[in-house]
Amino acid sequence: MVKGDWIKPGAVVIDCGINELPDKTKKSGQKLVGDVAFEEAKKIASYITPVPGGVGPMTVAMLMKNTVKSAQRAAARLKSVSWNLRILPLQLESPVPRDIEIARGQEPKDISQLAAEIGLYPSEVFQYGHKKAKIDLSVLRRLKYHKSGKYVVVAGITPTPLGEGKSTTTLGLVQALSAHKKKNSFACVRQPSQGPTFGIKGGAAGGGYSQVIPMEEFNLHLTGDIHAVTAANNLLAAQLDARIFHEKTQNDKSLYDRLVPDEEGERSFSKIQLKRLEKLGISKTDPDSLTPEEQRAFARLNIDVNTITWKRVVDTNDRFLRKITIGQSPTEKGYSRESGFVVSVASEIMAILALSKSMQDMKERLSRIVVAEDIEGRPVTADDLGATGAMSILLKDAIQPTLMQSLEGTPVLVHAGPFANIAHGCSSVIADDVALKLVGPGGYVVTEAGFGSDIGMEKFFNIKCRYSGAIPNAVVLVTSVRALKMHGGGPTVTPGIPLKKEYLEENLELLEKGLPNLQKHISNGAKFGIPVVVAINAFQTDSQAEWKLLEKTSLENGAFCAVICKHWAEGGAGALELADAVIEACNKPTEFRFLYDLDLPLEDKIRKIAQEMYGAGDIELSPDVRKLLENYNKQGYNRLPVCMAKTPLSLTGDPAVKGAPTGYMLPVKDVIVSAGAGFVVPIVGEISMMPGLGTRPNMYDMDIDADTGEIDGLF
Amino acid sequence: MVKGDWIKPGAVVIDCGINELPDKTKKSGQKLVGDVAFEEAKKIASYITPVPGGVGPMTVAMLMKNTVKSAQRAAARLKSVSWNLRILPLQLESPVPRDIEIARGQEPKDISQLAAEIGLYPSEVFQYGHKKAKIDLSVLRRLKYHKSGKYVVVAGITPTPLGEGKSTTTLGLVQALSAHKKKNSFACVRQPSQGPTFGIKGGAAGGGYSQVIPMEEFNLHLTGDIHAVTAANNLLAAQLDARIFHEKTQNDKSLYDRLVPDEEGERSFSKIQLKRLEKLGISKTDPDSLTPEEQRAFARLNIDVNTITWKRVVDTNDRFLRKITIGQSPTEKGYSRESGFVVSVASEIMAILALSKSMQDMKERLSRIVVAEDIEGRPVTADDLGATGAMSILLKDAIQPTLMQSLEGTPVLVHAGPFANIAHGCSSVIADDVALKLVGPGGYVVTEAGFGSDIGMEKFFNIKCRYSGAIPNAVVLVTSVRALKMHGGGPTVTPGIPLKKEYLEENLELLEKGLPNLQKHISNGAKFGIPVVVAINAFQTDSQAEWKLLEKTSLENGAFCAVICKHWAEGGAGALELADAVIEACNKPTEFRFLYDLDLPLEDKIRKIAQEMYGAGDIELSPDVRKLLENYNKQGYNRLPVCMAKTPLSLTGDPAVKGAPTGYMLPVKDVIVSAGAGFVVPIVGEISMMPGLGTRPNMYDMDIDADTGEIDGLF
Repeated sequence: MVKGDWIKPGAVVIDCGINELPDKTKKSGQKLVGDVAFEEAKKIASYITPVPGGVGPMTVAMLMKNTVKSAQRAAARLKSVSWNLRILPLQLESPVPRDIEIARGQEPKDISQLAAEIGLYPSEVFQYGHKKAKIDLSVLRRLKYHKSGKYVVVAGITPTPLGEGKSTTTLGLVQALSAHKKKNSFACVRQPSQGPTFGIKGGAAGGGYSQVIPMEEFNLHLTGDIHAVTAANNLLAAQLDARIFHEKTQNDKSLYDRLVPDEEGERSFSKIQLKRLEKLGISKTDPDSLTPEEQRAFARLNIDVNTITWKRVVDTNDRFLRKITIGQSPTEKGYSRESGFVVSVASEIMAILALSKSMQDMKERLSRIVVAEDIEGRPVTADDLGATGAMSILLKDAIQPTLMQSLEGTPVLVHAGPFANIAHGCSSVIADDVALKLVGPGGYVVTEAGFGSDIGMEKFFNIKCRYSGAIPNAVVLVTSVRALKMHGGGPTVTPGIPLKKEYLEENLELLEKGLPNLQKHISNGAKFGIPVVVAINAFQTDSQAEWKLLEKTSLENGAFCAVICKHWAEGGAGALELADAVIEACNKPTEFRFLYDLDLPLEDKIRKIAQEMYGAGDIELSPDVRKLLENYNKQGYNRLPVCMAKTPLSLTGDPAVKGAPTGYMLPVKDVIVSAGAGFVVPIVGEISMMPGLGTRPNMYDMDIDADTGEIDGLF
Repeated sequence: MVKGDWIKPGAVVIDCGINELPDKTKKSGQKLVGDVAFEEAKKIASYITPVPGGVGPMTVAMLMKNTVKSAQRAAARLKSVSWNLRILPLQLESPVPRDIEIARGQEPKDISQLAAEIGLYPSEVFQYGHKKAKIDLSVLRRLKYHKSGKYVVVAGITPTPLGEGKSTTTLGLVQALSAHKKKNSFACVRQPSQGPTFGIKGGAAGGGYSQVIPMEEFNLHLTGDIHAVTAANNLLAAQLDARIFHEKTQNDKSLYDRLVPDEEGERSFSKIQLKRLEKLGISKTDPDSLTPEEQRAFARLNIDVNTITWKRVVDTNDRFLRKITIGQSPTEKGYSRESGFVVSVASEIMAILALSKSMQDMKERLSRIVVAEDIEGRPVTADDLGATGAMSILLKDAIQPTLMQSLEGTPVLVHAGPFANIAHGCSSVIADDVALKLVGPGGYVVTEAGFGSDIGMEKFFNIKCRYSGAIPNAVVLVTSVRALKMHGGGPTVTPGIPLKKEYLEENLELLEKGLPNLQKHISNGAKFGIPVVVAINAFQTDSQAEWKLLEKTSLENGAFCAVICKHWAEGGAGALELADAVIEACNKPTEFRFLYDLDLPLEDKIRKIAQEMYGAGDIELSPDVRKLLENYNKQGYNRLPVCMAKTPLSLTGDPAVKGAPTGYMLPVKDVIVSAGAGFVVPIVGEISMMPGLGTRPNMYDMDIDADTGEIDGLF
């Protein structure tokens, strides 16, 4: 505590002694903020009174009294964890209108109002217009010693290509919790890629009466995070090729002299260059003292162009950039090579943003990014290329999560959107941390894991929770009658093509045949020691008998409970039962455990996931994969968790295989390391990392009214 | 005026009758807002009183009185054009510290405070954090009938590669006008590309004690406009290649059926498809009624891949993307082609953003973008590709200018940053429009034209002012002793290499020999009928005798006046004489005229610019250029203004030629059309549109402190 701070108003006083605040009642020996303040104030008074010509004892007494009062008020405010949330009422219509019509029908609160309602200070809120705001990470410092809320992950069964409503359920659940049950709650969701928005209709903001608003802000630039990731990724790529070029076109001396130039008679290494020297085991700091051999070792990264894994990215569905040849201008003197672009959300930097706990953590992860190997097989990192600081600067705002709101005016944090196959597919650790503190011990943070439990939930637990240290309290497993009928052998479901009649009328036989998929996903959740609440996402074509069958099966197979959810049609009011079930599940003592230890060899980690999560009999590693794994062992990556790149459309590696097969062989065809993000990625089957535009992309329907600014055709 | 609005507070009342506000005094027959309000209120009262069980006459009288009072207060506020600006005092140090140290030493005002000080309403201000804000274009509607301020353009002589201080002078001048002379003034400047920031030291925010702050915000993402331009540009590129691919891999029927799909029994053209039908002269609206020939004409754009001019863009200095081959993935079935990336600010969309007067205008310009020709030589547009609406949506926020502040707390608008060679190099028309209204009739808007008067100023007048309709009042021509010595035959000036002694001590002989370059630029300004104020940017190595020589020469050669400027070392206080000169110059009656009429054939426009602005004897057009110009004539582009792409480092086309040569032949080697931006670009010499990173880019020095967020090494 700084002395002089004491007579400043409110804010500073609040900070004092908050770590000594008891949870609910004051126990003997513990102190309330006010007590602490009073004792401190007495001490401070002794500093103030002796000021020459200064303050009399009466003034000091008044100051002290005011300080104590303000501290008591502040303490009261901090202890009261119930938010003063203004709920936005829904005007439900039937049939349910289009998502965009519902979203437009609701006027969002000014985001600064929502921020105030949930206890954020104005200095912690950076508005981006009136409907979204970035949250300063200083809030984590302020609330460091506050207790966290309960932590709930929304996962799913193996979905149809249409999706079974995980985002919608996430939103519906928090609307029920905050707007109806008066429990503090946050939804933490991913920022969607902008690319698909212009290709295929449909946003990622939930749907029906369970949405994030305004949906056009959510689905477009938002607060620029994906653009920042793109810029950082492509800066590293540009520097990689430029460095190879400069090394190839200069001799040792001129290369070294340019890297460590003489500036008005002075010559020195920059901080990041000193790190490279350290890596090389050179302890000198005077550039002129290096031997020619040391100069060469320092200046030549000797990148083996055949080992380059770093690609450029773009947030556009641009299929013609999948495979390209770069460096064909005469200015590049013939040093062309094959490369390609992937979508921005597939950048390792997006995964890093999602997994970092702080700016310092992010910087360290960025510094470890491996872009290629040198000609002797050693990894070449972002640090070697001198790019870590520059990338961190580009990401300085992106590390702050973005506050938005649900259709009922409850808070939502949108942050990071890593791919769910090549990466771990979860929103950010930082957003969850912020939300867990803001909801307080009586509150709930609901976040989503991409795809089915085999992919999204497994990575959520084994990667995200492992890095964040947060202990989850419950799984919500979203299922639908439609998807299970598909697993039971129903006709193929294809986006854009009307559903076959099997899906539009009762068919208990098909549903029954599909149940093993649901059973498998319930048991997947249970393996982590967490209660599984099955959320049956109700469709208007479902029958009561179908729902009953799902409830019964869920309970018989280890689910904590199973409830019918109608939040799509009814908003939070349609998810009250789900909210009750989640509250009850979260009150159970936690027995959370990881699926594997980090000490396990990489091959065994992969096998364990394949057997326990996918139902495979064993894994099949190609000789190339074996060699790569061996290499990673040598390079020290064996203690990393594993991030499987597998189709989400099947428990197996083949998207055409439905249901829940067992005993099959899972082939691993390739493996890469994301050393910065901190995981090893075994690749099962083809993973497309650059979507394309169809013959008639959605953009044909899009327009913006020049007078009103109203957007047409985006969703 | 809407009836019910009347009893709402303040804002609505202010709107009424403002177009009847006299400029300074109330003339007979005209009405003040208060009068209008009173008369209207009387009318409204008759609507209120008859409400059943409603309002009594006394209440109405009170309401009316309040309304009138509030209207009178509002009128007083609107008439008082003098801002209530809180000036940030400077703590001048000598020697002048580094730019970043000066910038950091000054705590900027909260941007919402600055916005309020200059008369913006909270609803017109979209904060992006606390230091920058986007301005809603509705302010132009509100101030539609307000008088505009004076309009000043800052141009320069032919610079050394170090630049001679145009941005610094722009900032110093507004700091002098607003902070010292108490005149409302705005600086309107370009947003710089992010790419060079990581390559070469130095920002674009001015320098010394004349800067835009915070400089890291200014030089990095700002409010995302360049990212939005990049996204729109690359969406069009992706759609272009995807369309070519889909046309090549489908027969007429399947192509047509996919473009106009049957959706649940209904089939219709989208708005943009109807525009294509109109272009083809097909007046049918039922998709099923088109003949096979019409279907083919509609569905096949038949793009000739050899004529594609549209490139992808990236805001990174990435030399390996200058020339590339795309479409090499097997999924593209062999339809690969050569292409390339240019930096984002070279995108035609950036020029469009800068030249648009409104969202509607921008949409129309976007729709006219030509990406290629079809196999019969007809232009293929963004509209043909169905991309206009989608691009407009991506640019919906980018069209709003960004408010920042100078080091002395005076307002700055940052908006658009088109290349100054391939495009016109000026900040946006919209920002100037907003600023001209906000400063009011007694105020000044100072904007900058890229490079020397031959390039930037010529385009500012002939392109920007022509499209905007704004009439400029004065030119500030920035000159330096250093640059003129170079033109007099001084040694080569190279960035990063210390200046030779000729530049560091008095050398009247060299300076005298360089004077023709200054004379030429003064006469260039005078040709537009505008007073030219020569601003001699003082360097500490200049001598009094050198300054005297420049003053004398300027006055003898038609300058309105010439003043020594010390704003770099002293902030606004160092530009008081310049401010006085500009005020005086702006009081002269305007005789502004364009250099050429739009009716002039393209070749004659080019010749006129070459002869009158560059001093060339004539132009030399290659046979290819002649053919292209002929083609543009046929396609109707002959009435567009001309945007020369020429080196800024010489009045001629050769950057090595200094001084002010005359009578030479200017070769035009290529010509392209930017149909959306609305100009024809004759190309003189090689123009690099994709910079590269050097051996030791600036990024090696960069870091961000994880605790404080302080950035190191960016400038």
